[in-house]
Amino acid sequence: MRRKLILDLDTGIDDAMAIAYALGSVDEADLIGITATYGNVAVPLAARNALAVLHLFGRDDVPVYPGVDHPIAPAELPGAGPTTVQWRAAAYGDWRAGGRGSWPVDAMWVPSPGSVAVHHPNGVGGAVIPDSPRAPEAPGSAVGFIIDAAREYGPDLTIVPTGAMTTMATVFRDAPDLMDSGVNVTLMGGALTLPGNVSPAAEANISQDPEAADWLFRCGARTTMIGLDVTHQTALTREKAHEWASLGTPAGDFLVAMTDYYIDFYLKNQPEIHGCGLHDPLAVAAALDPGLVTTFGFNLQVDLEGAFRGRTIGDRSRLQDADKHTQVALGVDVPRFLDRFMTRVTNAASAA
Amino acid sequence: MRRKLILDLDTGIDDAMAIAYALGSVDEADLIGITATYGNVAVPLAARNALAVLHLFGRDDVPVYPGVDHPIAPAELPGAGPTTVQWRAAAYGDWRAGGRGSWPVDAMWVPSPGSVAVHHPNGVGGAVIPDSPRAPEAPGSAVGFIIDAAREYGPDLTIVPTGAMTTMATVFRDAPDLMDSGVNVTLMGGALTLPGNVSPAAEANISQDPEAADWLFRCGARTTMIGLDVTHQTALTREKAHEWASLGTPAGDFLVAMTDYYIDFYLKNQPEIHGCGLHDPLAVAAALDPGLVTTFGFNLQVDLEGAFRGRTIGDRSRLQDADKHTQVALGVDVPRFLDRFMTRVTNAASAA
Repeated sequence: MRRKLILDLDTGIDDAMAIAYALGSVDEADLIGITATYGNVAVPLAARNALAVLHLFGRDDVPVYPGVDHPIAPAELPGAGPTTVQWRAAAYGDWRAGGRGSWPVDAMWVPSPGSVAVHHPNGVGGAVIPDSPRAPEAPGSAVGFIIDAAREYGPDLTIVPTGAMTTMATVFRDAPDLMDSGVNVTLMGGALTLPGNVSPAAEANISQDPEAADWLFRCGARTTMIGLDVTHQTALTREKAHEWASLGTPAGDFLVAMTDYYIDFYLKNQPEIHGCGLHDPLAVAAALDPGLVTTFGFNLQVDLEGAFRGRTIGDRSRLQDADKHTQVALGVDVPRFLDRFMTRVTNAASAA
Repeated sequence: MRRKLILDLDTGIDDAMAIAYALGSVDEADLIGITATYGNVAVPLAARNALAVLHLFGRDDVPVYPGVDHPIAPAELPGAGPTTVQWRAAAYGDWRAGGRGSWPVDAMWVPSPGSVAVHHPNGVGGAVIPDSPRAPEAPGSAVGFIIDAAREYGPDLTIVPTGAMTTMATVFRDAPDLMDSGVNVTLMGGALTLPGNVSPAAEANISQDPEAADWLFRCGARTTMIGLDVTHQTALTREKAHEWASLGTPAGDFLVAMTDYYIDFYLKNQPEIHGCGLHDPLAVAAALDPGLVTTFGFNLQVDLEGAFRGRTIGDRSRLQDADKHTQVALGVDVPRFLDRFMTRVTNAASAA
C-alpha cells in the first residue's frame, strides 16, 4: 500500500537522508508535505534546507510548511483527556516556580553550539546546494496542514517527527479528535533503555522541548517511538556512503559531502560505532515497514526537572493501564535496514 | 521438573512471602538453602528471620548461610572477562576519587531509616514469630555454598537474589567458571523503563551496592532481571491477604499480620496500587515459570555517579553485541501470577 506521508523535520543531515529515503520509497510512500520544526537548526533554515533538498532531488511538487518555531509555553497546552489534567497542573506549577528552563516565550529558538557542531552552521554538513526557486508556505502553517491531512486521510496517513515535538503537540492540542483517528505518528526521539545523547538523561530531540514531548506522550495520542535504543544500533560507514560518488549526480555528490562531515563528527565523538548514526532515516523506514523493528508497549512521560530533565521513562501512574499509548522500538533488524537504506537512497539519488 | 533453588534474601516482608511461595511450589522447587544478604535489614537479622520463617512453616531442614554483610570494595573485584577491564579501571578511578559513596570498607551495613520504615525494625512488619531452634551456618559461608551448588547442579540450579547483589557478585568473582555454567540467576532489582523507588534513578536493591550490581551485569554472567518494570504492576490487596486468617494456622496469622503492616505502608506512600507490592515473590515465580513474564534481552550497566547513581540502564559499549547477557522482564501476566501466588502461599501456610 502507498501511504500518505508527512515528514516533520529539523533538516539537518540525517533529516536530509530521511527525505531521500522517503523519495526513494516510491512504492510505499506518497510524500504529501514536509513540515519544518527546530532542533538541529532553526525553523527558517529547516524549511530552506527541506526545499533545497527537494529541488536537488527533482521534487518541486512537495510543499514545505513552517511549524512552531520555539518551545511551547505550558499555558498554551490547556485541555486534553482527563488522565492528563493532574499531571499538567503539576507541570505548570513547576514551570511557574521557575523549573521550566530559560527559553523566553515567543522568541524564536536558535540552535545550541552543540547542534551547530553536529550538523554544521548550514545544517547539511557544509555541503553547498542551491536554494530552491520555491518559497515555503506561510509561517506557522504546519499545524493546520497536518490537521487537515490527518482529518482527510486518517489511518492512511503517517507522520514522522524527527526534531522538537512542539508542532506535533500543538496539532493534538488543537485537534483532540485526531487522538483516536488512527493517524500514525512514528517519531525519532527519546531513549528508554539507554542513556541520552545530550545528557545522561536526555536525547536531543526530546531535550528541545520536554514539555511538548511529555504532552505528546500523555495526551492520549498514539505514537511509535524510534529512540536511541535502536538508532544507536545502526551506522553508516564511510565506505558505504562513498558508493554514492559513483552515481555522478548532484544528489549523489551532495550525499557524499554531507555524510563525510557527519562521519567525521561521529569518529571524533563516538568512534565505537565506526560511522554515523541513521536516526531519522530509521524512523521513516520503521514508519513504512514496522516489521523492521521489534516494539513493546509503554505509557511514557518525560521528566521535566533537574538532572533528569528530558528523560523518556515509564509513567508510574499509567503502568497498570492495559492500554499502552506508545510502542517503543527496542530491537531492529540492522542488516535488513542498512540494505534497504542504501537501495532507496541510491534509487532517489540516481535519478537526480 | 523440580528445580534446585537457592534464595538470596534480605528477609524482609516480601522476602518472607517469597519463602512461602517457594515452599508452596512443591512440584517445581527443591529449596536447598537460603543465603542472607542485606538491604531491608542487616545480614544477621536477615538470617534470623529466614530461619524463623522456615521454622514457622515446618521446614527446619533448609539451611541458612550468611552472605557478605557490606557493600563490596571495588578493589575486591579484580579479574573477569576482558570486556569489563576498561570499565572497572574507570570505576576504580571514580571510587578512589571519592565517587564511591560513604560506606566504610569492612564495616557491617546497617539499614537506612527508609528501609526500617518499609519493613519495621524487626524486618517482618512487627509480626512476632519465635526464633528458630537452629543457628545459621558460618559467617560468610553463603559464597562457598552457592559456588559448590552451582558447580554440582549447573543448569538445574536457580538462584533468586532479592537484596543487595554483593554476595552474587562475589560468587562470580571467585568462580568465573560459573559464568557459562548455565546456572540461572533471576534477580529482583532495578528499573529499566520506570523511575526508581529510592531516587528517580535507583531501585532499592541496586542502590545498596551499585558497584556489585554493575559488576554482576557486566562480568559476563547471564541474568534475568525482575525489576520495578513488572513488580510495580502487581499488588496484593488487604482483602486477598485476609483470606489467610481463615486458615487458623500460625503461618496464616503471621502472613496476615505482616502484610497488614506492609499494606499500611503502601497505602500511605503509594496509594495508587491499592495494596502492597509483590516484588520478591514475583522473582521466585518467574524463576520457576519464565512464561509468567515477557522478557527482552539487553546488556546492562549500573550508573555509579551523582543523581544517576544506582540506575540500571543499557550499556552503550555493548549495544551492538548480538549476545545479550540480561533478560529484562517488561511484561507480566498479572492475573495468572496473583492466582498462583495465592494458591502456593496458601498451600504452604495451610500445613503450618
